[in-house]
Amino acid sequence: MSEKLCSLRWENDGVVVLDQTLLPTEIKYIKITEIEQMFTAIKTMVIRGAGVLSFGGAYGIYLGVCNNSYSSKQQFIEDVKAKAQYIKSCRPTAVSLSVTADRLVKLVQENSTESVQELKDMMLLDCHLMCKESAQKDYAVGLLGLTLLKDNDAVLTHCNTGIYASIGLGSAVAPFYLAKERGLKIKVYADETRPLLQGSRLTAHELYHAGVDVTLICDNMAGYLMQQGKINAVFVGCDRIAANGDTVNKIGTYSAAVLAKHHNIPFYVFGAADDVDLSIETGSLIPIEQRDGQEVTNFFGRQTAPDGVKVYNPGFDVTPHRLITAIILENGIVKPSYKENLKNAVASY
Amino acid sequence: MSEKLCSLRWENDGVVVLDQTLLPTEIKYIKITEIEQMFTAIKTMVIRGAGVLSFGGAYGIYLGVCNNSYSSKQQFIEDVKAKAQYIKSCRPTAVSLSVTADRLVKLVQENSTESVQELKDMMLLDCHLMCKESAQKDYAVGLLGLTLLKDNDAVLTHCNTGIYASIGLGSAVAPFYLAKERGLKIKVYADETRPLLQGSRLTAHELYHAGVDVTLICDNMAGYLMQQGKINAVFVGCDRIAANGDTVNKIGTYSAAVLAKHHNIPFYVFGAADDVDLSIETGSLIPIEQRDGQEVTNFFGRQTAPDGVKVYNPGFDVTPHRLITAIILENGIVKPSYKENLKNAVASY
Repeated sequence: MSEKLCSLRWENDGVVVLDQTLLPTEIKYIKITEIEQMFTAIKTMVIRGAGVLSFGGAYGIYLGVCNNSYSSKQQFIEDVKAKAQYIKSCRPTAVSLSVTADRLVKLVQENSTESVQELKDMMLLDCHLMCKESAQKDYAVGLLGLTLLKDNDAVLTHCNTGIYASIGLGSAVAPFYLAKERGLKIKVYADETRPLLQGSRLTAHELYHAGVDVTLICDNMAGYLMQQGKINAVFVGCDRIAANGDTVNKIGTYSAAVLAKHHNIPFYVFGAADDVDLSIETGSLIPIEQRDGQEVTNFFGRQTAPDGVKVYNPGFDVTPHRLITAIILENGIVKPSYKENLKNAVASY
Repeated sequence: MSEKLCSLRWENDGVVVLDQTLLPTEIKYIKITEIEQMFTAIKTMVIRGAGVLSFGGAYGIYLGVCNNSYSSKQQFIEDVKAKAQYIKSCRPTAVSLSVTADRLVKLVQENSTESVQELKDMMLLDCHLMCKESAQKDYAVGLLGLTLLKDNDAVLTHCNTGIYASIGLGSAVAPFYLAKERGLKIKVYADETRPLLQGSRLTAHELYHAGVDVTLICDNMAGYLMQQGKINAVFVGCDRIAANGDTVNKIGTYSAAVLAKHHNIPFYVFGAADDVDLSIETGSLIPIEQRDGQEVTNFFGRQTAPDGVKVYNPGFDVTPHRLITAIILENGIVKPSYKENLKNAVASY
C-alpha cells in the first residue's frame, strides 16, 4: 500500500507506464523506449485516459526521433511531422492526442533556427512541461475541492477521474488524496460505473491502494445510501461544459445528480477551463455517443444477456446546470449563474 | 421464438423444470422424478424465485413418498413430515418453501381417515392446485396492469418478476405478455439489475424469447431515458409491503422511483395480497439483508475490483409510499391513502 501509483512518468531514457489492462488484479509498469512500443501501448489501452495518453503520445514522438541522425534540419522537421501523424493515427478520435502532437510539431517549426540537437532537447523539455502543467492544474482543482470537504464527510463519486485518468491527481478524485495527506477523514463511495466498470477497476483500486477509505457500490445503490443520510456530497468529473453550465460526463452522472437533488445533497462537477465550450449554448446540443451493445451484453467475455436482444448503450449523459451546485475549474469555483460566471472564469484565465 | 417458456410444470410422472443456471445462453429442461433430484435442483439454483421453488419443493415431497409402500398410515404421515423437513432444509430462509411444505403436511394430517393411496393422490392434486392458484393470481395482476397501459407506451422494469420467478406470468412483467397477446405495442426497457443481473439474464431473456419488444439497459441509464421523455411508466415487483404502502424490492428500485418522481412518470408496484404485512407500520422497520461483497467485486468468476476493497451490497431497498402511484394486487389496484386502502384490500380478500 506504500508505493505511490503513477500512470506515466519519464525515467532516464524512456517512459514508464502502468499497464492499465492488468488492473485491478495486477500492478505492473512497462518501460517504453521506442515510438512503436508507445503506439502499441496506446492502441491496446495499456495507457488510457485523455490526460495520460496525450502525454504518452508526445513522449512517443520524441522517442521516435531522439536517436536518429538527420542529414538536414528540414529532414528532421519532416520526420517529427511524420511521427506525429503516426501517433495520432493510433487513436484518431482522441482530441487531446492531436493537441500535444501538434504542439511538438509547432515547437520545432517555430524554432527552426536552432540545431537538431537543440530541437530534440526542446521537445523533451516541452513534454515534461506539458505534464507538469497538467499535474499543477490537477493540484489546483484538488485544493479547491478540498475547501468543499469537512472532517468525516462521505462523498459519492462516479467513473474514474483520478491518477489513472491523468498525469497528476486527476480532477474529482484529487481532493480525496489531498484530504488524506492532511489527515482529514473522508469516506468515499465509488460507483462501479457500468458498463465498463471504471469505478471498480480503476477508482476503487487507486484509492484503496493509496489508503483512502473507499467503499465500492453498484450504481443502483447510491440512492439508498442517500436515503439513509450516508452521503454528504457528490464529486464527479466532466468531458465538456456548455456555456450555460450543462455538463457532459459518463453515463449515470445525470441519475446521480437527480438523486442528489432529491436528497438536498450538493453536487459538484470537476473540470478544467479547457472543458468549457462557450460556443455551445446548452448541453442538449452536444451529441451523445452510442456505444456497442456488447459492452452491456458481454461482461469481459462472459455472455450475460440473450443473443440478439436490443441494447441501449449511451456512453455519456448531460447533467443540466440547475442540478449542479458548483463547477470546480483549476482557476476557481464557479457558481450559478453559470452563463455569466463561466464566461468570466474562462476569460480571466 | 415460438416455444413458450415455462419455469416448472408437472408432466406424467415428474416435474419438468427449466435449468435457470444455463440462462441466458441455453434453454434446457430437466425432468425430475426423485425428491433428491429436486433438493439438488433447488440447492444449485436450477430452479429459483420464491414462486417457483416453493411449488418445486411441494412436488418434491410428493415424489419422495408416492412410490413407497408403508406398513401403516402413521408411518406414511411421519415420512411426509420427514420429507417436508428435508426439502425445507435445502433453503431454510425461503419462507415460501415452508408454506407449501407445511400445507402438504397439514393436508395429510387433517385427512388421516383416508387411505395412504388417497392421501398420495390428494397431495399431488394439492400441488397442482397451489400452482393453479398462483398462476391465476399472476393473471389477475397482469390484467389489472394492462389497464394502466396504452398503445405505444414504453415501460421501465427492474429485476425479474416474470415467468422465471413465478409459476404463472409473474407480476410486474405479466401485463407485457398480455399486451403482446392483445396486439398492444408496448416497448419494455429492462434494467440489467446489478449485481446479479436478473434483468439481463432473466427478464430480457424471457421477454425477448416471447417476442415482446425489450431493450436492455444498465441501471444507470434509466435517468437519461426519462430525461429524454422515452419512459411512460415504471413497473416493478415487491417482496413486502408495509401497512403505510412502503414497499421493499430489489436494490435499485428506490433510485428508479426517485427518478420517476423527478420526471413525473407514474411508478407502479406489483405484488400479491400475501405480500402486505399490516403488522409492519412503515418500510423503515423492515430489515435489509446485506449480501456478500463478492457479488460486486467478482463477476461470474472474473475479478473486477481490487483485492480487499470494502463493498456495500444491500440486497434490497425501501421505496416510500409517497413515490408510488399505485400498488397492484391480484384483487385490485390500490391507490393512496395506502394505510386505509391496503387494509381494506387485504380485508376484502
